[in-house]
Amino acid sequence: MPDAVSVIASKRDGHELTSAQIDWVIDAYTRGEVADEQMAALAMAVYFRGMTRPEVSRWTHAMIASGTRLDFTHLPRPTVDKHSTGGVGDKITLPLTPLVAACGAAVPQLSGRGLGHTGGTLDKLESIPGWRADLDNAEIDRILADPAVGAVVCAAGSGLAPADKKLYALRDVTGTVESIPLIASSIMSKKIAEGTGALVLDVKVGSGAFMTDVDDARALARTMVALGTDAGVRTTALLTAMDEPLGCTAGNALEVREALDVLAGAGPPDVVELTLALAREMVAAVGLDGVDPADVLASGAAMDRWRAMIAAQGGDPDAPLPAAAHTDTVRSAGAGIVHRVDARAVGIAAWRLGAGRAVQGEQVQASAGVELHVRRGDRVAAGAPLATLHTDTPERFEAARAALADAFAVGRTEEDARPVTRPLVLERIGEAAG
Amino acid sequence: MPDAVSVIASKRDGHELTSAQIDWVIDAYTRGEVADEQMAALAMAVYFRGMTRPEVSRWTHAMIASGTRLDFTHLPRPTVDKHSTGGVGDKITLPLTPLVAACGAAVPQLSGRGLGHTGGTLDKLESIPGWRADLDNAEIDRILADPAVGAVVCAAGSGLAPADKKLYALRDVTGTVESIPLIASSIMSKKIAEGTGALVLDVKVGSGAFMTDVDDARALARTMVALGTDAGVRTTALLTAMDEPLGCTAGNALEVREALDVLAGAGPPDVVELTLALAREMVAAVGLDGVDPADVLASGAAMDRWRAMIAAQGGDPDAPLPAAAHTDTVRSAGAGIVHRVDARAVGIAAWRLGAGRAVQGEQVQASAGVELHVRRGDRVAAGAPLATLHTDTPERFEAARAALADAFAVGRTEEDARPVTRPLVLERIGEAAG
Repeated sequence: MPDAVSVIASKRDGHELTSAQIDWVIDAYTRGEVADEQMAALAMAVYFRGMTRPEVSRWTHAMIASGTRLDFTHLPRPTVDKHSTGGVGDKITLPLTPLVAACGAAVPQLSGRGLGHTGGTLDKLESIPGWRADLDNAEIDRILADPAVGAVVCAAGSGLAPADKKLYALRDVTGTVESIPLIASSIMSKKIAEGTGALVLDVKVGSGAFMTDVDDARALARTMVALGTDAGVRTTALLTAMDEPLGCTAGNALEVREALDVLAGAGPPDVVELTLALAREMVAAVGLDGVDPADVLASGAAMDRWRAMIAAQGGDPDAPLPAAAHTDTVRSAGAGIVHRVDARAVGIAAWRLGAGRAVQGEQVQASAGVELHVRRGDRVAAGAPLATLHTDTPERFEAARAALADAFAVGRTEEDARPVTRPLVLERIGEAAG
Repeated sequence: MPDAVSVIASKRDGHELTSAQIDWVIDAYTRGEVADEQMAALAMAVYFRGMTRPEVSRWTHAMIASGTRLDFTHLPRPTVDKHSTGGVGDKITLPLTPLVAACGAAVPQLSGRGLGHTGGTLDKLESIPGWRADLDNAEIDRILADPAVGAVVCAAGSGLAPADKKLYALRDVTGTVESIPLIASSIMSKKIAEGTGALVLDVKVGSGAFMTDVDDARALARTMVALGTDAGVRTTALLTAMDEPLGCTAGNALEVREALDVLAGAGPPDVVELTLALAREMVAAVGLDGVDPADVLASGAAMDRWRAMIAAQGGDPDAPLPAAAHTDTVRSAGAGIVHRVDARAVGIAAWRLGAGRAVQGEQVQASAGVELHVRRGDRVAAGAPLATLHTDTPERFEAARAALADAFAVGRTEEDARPVTRPLVLERIGEAAG
């Protein structure tokens, strides 16, 4: 019978934890027998010592085993899900989910709410009048099985990987977030428990992402792909750049509007590019080889799916999106060429305007956010608008403007504005050998 | 204003904590604002990253500042205290305290109770009828000032270094005991708060000690000497061997009896040697240069002090010590030469007989313990008695005998019995440069 101190000491001293130790400590922690302070010490030891592939695989499975696991194998179509590690303006799930469904896959997209400067997909969709995030398993099944819908974006039930939920909250307050095996097992325990047959990961890297270093992002992606593969989920990952915000908007209704532009065949080129890149991965992962998502998007079929998907969850796809009661414009001090738009600063400004929350459970404003008028490489005159700020509570403008003080770098010469030549999709990580 | 996560992350990432961070985190932890899980993560980060001398010095002072600090500078004589890191059969405090008082120093010996296989000084003295460990500050002052006593062994008040008390309990359940800066700051925060002017540390090393490696023990001793020096306490340390039990007894009343033998001018040679070595260090630390503790011991003055010290705390020095209701003898299976008596096994046997406690607050048996009849190098016949077990609860004999199953190694040849040639006092660590 293991005990908490011996498990902690094993990891602290650099030993590989046994399956019995891992199963016991996760189960006992979920039941409250292993105390928070003990799990915190273990998490810090994992931070320093890492985990082998068998360890992190078992750790992930123990977290899955702490709760229920969904199963979509009875559906007539293959299932595929996407997960992003989070970036500013990342509304890709919105056009991607109906697009992949229109390509012929079933897409069970279980999502979360935002915290801090990155937005949550559910918060964005909740800006659509009537739309609801909470579905029971029978509703999810019915919508996925419906050949005219086949896609669902909803809240993950509390029964999925409760050990992860508890551990995630603990890591947040104990300085143990930044551990690749703990990040990977947290994401993958939820995604595997959600029952998808295939999974595509969008691992963000850059100044606006959690991972600023490409080597760290690659290591995280490889670990997650290995975990998915070990669990029988066909998993691939794209490393994608997150230095600038994705698209021109950050904020809930603002991002929905931009997603609608993409579904209508327009929208910012980077959002279109990433949507199609991820769609191709997802379609390939479920063996729909003859389908080109670009054709499906151009045909309008993805927009039809969007409307069906929104309606299936009580939303009115024709209702006007909420607009902010107040707007304010940020203008360029000088003339020149925009050579940087800082993603993190834009995310923080949107959060301060009311689009995000500081603590779980807080209400967000549907209409708040930042609308960008310039992108890297654009030429601006002195006094030209750089961004419009949206909020229902105008006392928030000052803090948002402060967040944006250094967000736009405007240079005088073409030289200054020479773009960092890195593509949006940096690298693809395929299934790892066992 | 620091916050817990940023302090944890600083140490985790290998930065030196600032004085402000250390002061804040210790104070906030004592007040409950920093949670146990946060301090556990920080302690594990300290385990991996260590602390610089300024960090551990500040950490120690912050723990002292969490409570009250005693002050004996008004006494007419210099004060000196001894601390041992703990070993089996370590009753040295008992003869040492009155001996050093008889040499002319005041000895405020604040002590603890035992937990696990090492006994506590207060538990030992409580086997003397009437003797009480709990004194208030006025009583301690009065006894120390009394020229006929000048020595007190009592419980440390709960007001001394409460941060350490809380942290010590946390480390015990989170696998963060084994960190030299945390061990050193824990010991030294209590000892400095106790107000002694000088301090001699007995750092045990060997199979029966917490530190089995001499390099670790030396590092711990050096850290503690530096902390004492930084706090203005004249501090030295002896590294002493703890492979075999000290003396021939482990258990409360049994050890008091052995201490009385030493005070009477007899007793086991190792107990006498270590008592005199530590007494010389203590006497030198307070500048009593002309006094030889061996002469004072031989004169009977130390025994007189013992009687006065016991009486001053309500004890009857003439009362018979409690004797166990049951005894049992462990005999040698074969004939030969004893080449090892395992300290840890003897400590565990004494504990199982009732001399120690498994959890804080448990009652101990005054008369329980192990009495050894052989020491390394002794020649024994088959069936010769190796040890006598003492307890009031004979159902404990079986577990105690099991603990001793491999404790005595009896070899057939002189070669087997060749003693490990290490002296009892291995090394002296003097005041470190700043």
